[in-house]
Amino acid sequence: MITWQIEQIKLNLKYTWKLSRNATDFKLNNIITVGDGKHNGKGEVAPNIRYNETPELMLSEFERFANVAPSTCIHIEEFTELLDSLKLPNALRFGIESAYIHFRCVQSGESVCDYLGIQHPTIIATSFSLPIMPADEIAAFYKQHHLERFTRLKLKVNAEYAHDLLQALSKVTRQPLIIDANEGWKNPDELLSFLNELTPYNIDIIEQPMPAGLDAEYTYVKKQSPFLLIADESICNHANFEQLKHQFHGINMKLMKAGGYINGLRLLNEAVKHNMHTMVGCMIETSLGISSAMNVCAGVKFIDLDGFLIIKDEPFGIIEENKGQLRVI
Amino acid sequence: MITWQIEQIKLNLKYTWKLSRNATDFKLNNIITVGDGKHNGKGEVAPNIRYNETPELMLSEFERFANVAPSTCIHIEEFTELLDSLKLPNALRFGIESAYIHFRCVQSGESVCDYLGIQHPTIIATSFSLPIMPADEIAAFYKQHHLERFTRLKLKVNAEYAHDLLQALSKVTRQPLIIDANEGWKNPDELLSFLNELTPYNIDIIEQPMPAGLDAEYTYVKKQSPFLLIADESICNHANFEQLKHQFHGINMKLMKAGGYINGLRLLNEAVKHNMHTMVGCMIETSLGISSAMNVCAGVKFIDLDGFLIIKDEPFGIIEENKGQLRVI
Repeated sequence: MITWQIEQIKLNLKYTWKLSRNATDFKLNNIITVGDGKHNGKGEVAPNIRYNETPELMLSEFERFANVAPSTCIHIEEFTELLDSLKLPNALRFGIESAYIHFRCVQSGESVCDYLGIQHPTIIATSFSLPIMPADEIAAFYKQHHLERFTRLKLKVNAEYAHDLLQALSKVTRQPLIIDANEGWKNPDELLSFLNELTPYNIDIIEQPMPAGLDAEYTYVKKQSPFLLIADESICNHANFEQLKHQFHGINMKLMKAGGYINGLRLLNEAVKHNMHTMVGCMIETSLGISSAMNVCAGVKFIDLDGFLIIKDEPFGIIEENKGQLRVI
Repeated sequence: MITWQIEQIKLNLKYTWKLSRNATDFKLNNIITVGDGKHNGKGEVAPNIRYNETPELMLSEFERFANVAPSTCIHIEEFTELLDSLKLPNALRFGIESAYIHFRCVQSGESVCDYLGIQHPTIIATSFSLPIMPADEIAAFYKQHHLERFTRLKLKVNAEYAHDLLQALSKVTRQPLIIDANEGWKNPDELLSFLNELTPYNIDIIEQPMPAGLDAEYTYVKKQSPFLLIADESICNHANFEQLKHQFHGINMKLMKAGGYINGLRLLNEAVKHNMHTMVGCMIETSLGISSAMNVCAGVKFIDLDGFLIIKDEPFGIIEENKGQLRVI
């Protein structure tokens, strides 16, 4: 007999988390637990309002799953079919699938990587994100949070303040940057004008500068962009890679968007098959969710798993971060 | 009364320097000295056979200059006009111009950056190049030369062994890479097939994969390349940037190609104006030539000034390299 539970956790943040579309001081996530009384596994759900995932919806959708959840262990393929048939929100689907896989691994004593048949990652050096803030606060923020320890920084920008933020940060450091516009530009020519002015900065990649769905616009911009473009909001749990490869140079795969380990790995493999660069990202998640994402990082080029670092009193304490490198403890 | 001299120096290398087009164990450079008996300035000439510059030609062309060289100090603009009228080989032109500017700076006590009206560079972290070698020697080479200390490595490749070399290096390190093909690919579709297979590697930029002059082919490749393309052999002392910007994402400016500080700075400024990335590179040069190039590095994204590090008994000892960072001592 196995049982399933969901618990909501409120995660207070160390500082206001502001993107181009919204701002928040806390995050409501869920922890899924599945166990047989002897062993159990946990998985995290980090709902994202961008994908119409609300904390309330996670609870009601979990009930829909719980009503048909298996009460004995079944094969992962059968479990996958069940999840697929329910069409759950992706973040919830990931929490449930990962809890089940973690549970099965605890039972068998196997590592998650071995269970999934993938390489164990070696060094995991994450980038660190700066939320949108007044430009004149960036230098102090950089110093206060010791950002010199990360190999790469991600700067969240909106169209209005992008230049000011970038100038302010570049006065403090020459660390390589990811510019994340979270769909902030609507017009491809305005975007290109903006990007063209950025070549003097030490920028590695540009993440999702225009809204998802602007397929023709992205195809147009990619041909002329002075930087590599990475899809975030343009790829959730599925993608037409034959189209996507003409719009972006790479993808940011997040397990909360992919809806599970198995589908997340499929997306990474498809990206490589289509000659695209790979990135593994995260939402605001505890070290439970981040440690899950660490499992799929072998061979991934850009690792952006800083979501747990901005949580005040992070509840699981599974990961140690040292000089920007992550290690499960 | 000012006098001009040229001296040839033989630079023995620490190991065989092999590119896609040739291999050598030593290099013949020249040192230009100009002085008034009280002060003097020196400039280096690193001729490159790729540009039809031979050691013999440097000597005969210097004589042509010496016959009309000014015997008193003249304004730099007048000096520039004289050099332009002589149409000297670029490397020699740089040696003469830089010697004169260094001399003028020693006279006046001004720094070269101040003389040129440019910002002083702060941190100069150079990449380090691995010559072409049997793939099974790469791991030992990496270890022997302590390459972990550089922020970026440049791998010289030819079409035949590129994959083997890249695989071998990537087994040793995940440091960001520059792939330098030195015009090794002739066919744009074959090049694209090659580049498309490289996305799993940690590659920052691809340098000059096809011969200079293949304008239509470069324009075609740039639109589809999964990596940023940097022009090396495609830009010497002048360029049509309106065309070049459609073929490459950036330029590798080398003072020996540019023919002087003033023209080198012009090329860097033009590149930025045309929204292109900038790189400062070098030939096999002593620390005299490299210290010259360091003067123009403020604001430059990719710095590749390792030419003096492969010289055995480097004669000037002007630069200290520590953890890949360069400092004039």
